[in-house]
Amino acid sequence: MTLIDGKQTAQKIRQELAEEVKTMKQQTGKVPHLAAILVGEDPASDTYVRMKVKDCEQIGYQSTLIRYDADISEEELLAKVEEINQDKDIDGLIVQLPLPNHITSEKITFAIRPEKDVDGFHPINIGRMAKGLPAYVCATPHGVLELIKRYEIPTSGKHCVVIGRSDIVGTPVSILMSRKAYPGNATVTVCHSRTPNIAEITRQADIVIAALGKPEFLTADMVKDGAVVIDVGTTRVEDSSKKSGFGLRGDVKFDEVSPKSSYITPVPGGVGPMTRASLLYNTMLAAKGAIY
Amino acid sequence: MTLIDGKQTAQKIRQELAEEVKTMKQQTGKVPHLAAILVGEDPASDTYVRMKVKDCEQIGYQSTLIRYDADISEEELLAKVEEINQDKDIDGLIVQLPLPNHITSEKITFAIRPEKDVDGFHPINIGRMAKGLPAYVCATPHGVLELIKRYEIPTSGKHCVVIGRSDIVGTPVSILMSRKAYPGNATVTVCHSRTPNIAEITRQADIVIAALGKPEFLTADMVKDGAVVIDVGTTRVEDSSKKSGFGLRGDVKFDEVSPKSSYITPVPGGVGPMTRASLLYNTMLAAKGAIY
Repeated sequence: MTLIDGKQTAQKIRQELAEEVKTMKQQTGKVPHLAAILVGEDPASDTYVRMKVKDCEQIGYQSTLIRYDADISEEELLAKVEEINQDKDIDGLIVQLPLPNHITSEKITFAIRPEKDVDGFHPINIGRMAKGLPAYVCATPHGVLELIKRYEIPTSGKHCVVIGRSDIVGTPVSILMSRKAYPGNATVTVCHSRTPNIAEITRQADIVIAALGKPEFLTADMVKDGAVVIDVGTTRVEDSSKKSGFGLRGDVKFDEVSPKSSYITPVPGGVGPMTRASLLYNTMLAAKGAIY
Repeated sequence: MTLIDGKQTAQKIRQELAEEVKTMKQQTGKVPHLAAILVGEDPASDTYVRMKVKDCEQIGYQSTLIRYDADISEEELLAKVEEINQDKDIDGLIVQLPLPNHITSEKITFAIRPEKDVDGFHPINIGRMAKGLPAYVCATPHGVLELIKRYEIPTSGKHCVVIGRSDIVGTPVSILMSRKAYPGNATVTVCHSRTPNIAEITRQADIVIAALGKPEFLTADMVKDGAVVIDVGTTRVEDSSKKSGFGLRGDVKFDEVSPKSSYITPVPGGVGPMTRASLLYNTMLAAKGAIY
């Protein structure tokens, strides 16, 4: 069994990007610039955004964090998005979700120019991805594929079973794994809450991608010997042994599944760190104009 | 075994749309208006476009057919698309593919305003569909789902196996069949040319959607008893018994598969006629402003 080290891989990606930033700066005087908008005081959102900004600083990107009180109007927020859309100095823009209830997230996300949509949430980026065209791929699916690629896990002709059909993980990762490319060219099955016989299907899988958000859902009897197991789950659970009082649980019962698997991602330290690295990767693509 | 009659179903849809046009005309003085652009002299394309125009006339839509010689420049064609984009009198625009080699089809397709993209080829419509938002669904996937719906075939929790991963049939139909809706909520597997054990997988299917374009690929030993079989294949083959000298063959070996199936679509007369009806359906949505 090989433990897929997402933390180390993400670190490697950040190093590669830091090198690229240096070269870019020497050649053009410019560095990638990510703007992030945070609305309200949600502590988790606050932490996520600050981590993203810190990631940028660490590898030499410029970053701009724009904070608004929770009572900002949809119009004001849209006006800011439009201002950043027009700002030639800013390459990528993310708006931290969730937004307060009086703001329609969709309206804001769709207002971001596809060229700056480094979160890959805009329908045009999802549609381009589905058509096999250059696109910003959302952070988590991108992170999953990058792990598969860097560990040189074969995917062509393999049976990949994805558990979960969310529009930011399950659905895009299933599209990517079946497209004509590497990683990809897999036979892909998408299971979800309406699938009556999930175990029967996951037992056929060469690669299982668990992205349903139910702690320790995937048990040893559900995977075949030698399967590749990618755990996208990150559910917060109370854990008195941690200083913070909570821990993260994946969708995979790691202790019993790992001995059967050929490759497996842990939680934490698997897909999670890759998600943050993917945002940096997409921001570099934006700065280089590599997609549009 | 129930034979799914696509010809009759398409006829029914046309009648329903014709009724809707009458009401629309009485209430607003307006009828749906489809514009079609045809470049060059390809006889098959010529036939398709003329059929689409004829369909419009039959049910009371307005239609405009714009023909160009094969040597029209990309710029001129783009200018025309832009003109129609701005024309408030035209609800839907299709550009018949394939286009001559000196024109990048993608550039033209993507230039059509998403609001008028009744073929559902624009990435934004595919992305919206993937996100479960209102969108123009491409004609063939839409036709497949409409048949399933009108024959009240259960899909929730069923295993649907799609053979083929094209961006206009296999991929979108697989996304639609797994989304939270009816038809949908199925466990979906996408097989393709790289799948080593297709028969093993199709034998598990409650619903098989064959869209690979290989005549009579799906044989009786590949389906389980009682399966629903949807045949999207329409390969032209020589057939001296036909006046035209050719006939259409589906991806399913109909004679041997039909006795085992609970529902099956024939070729011709199954999915084919539905494709044309779907275009009319999307054009009505455009005229009503139902999507955007």
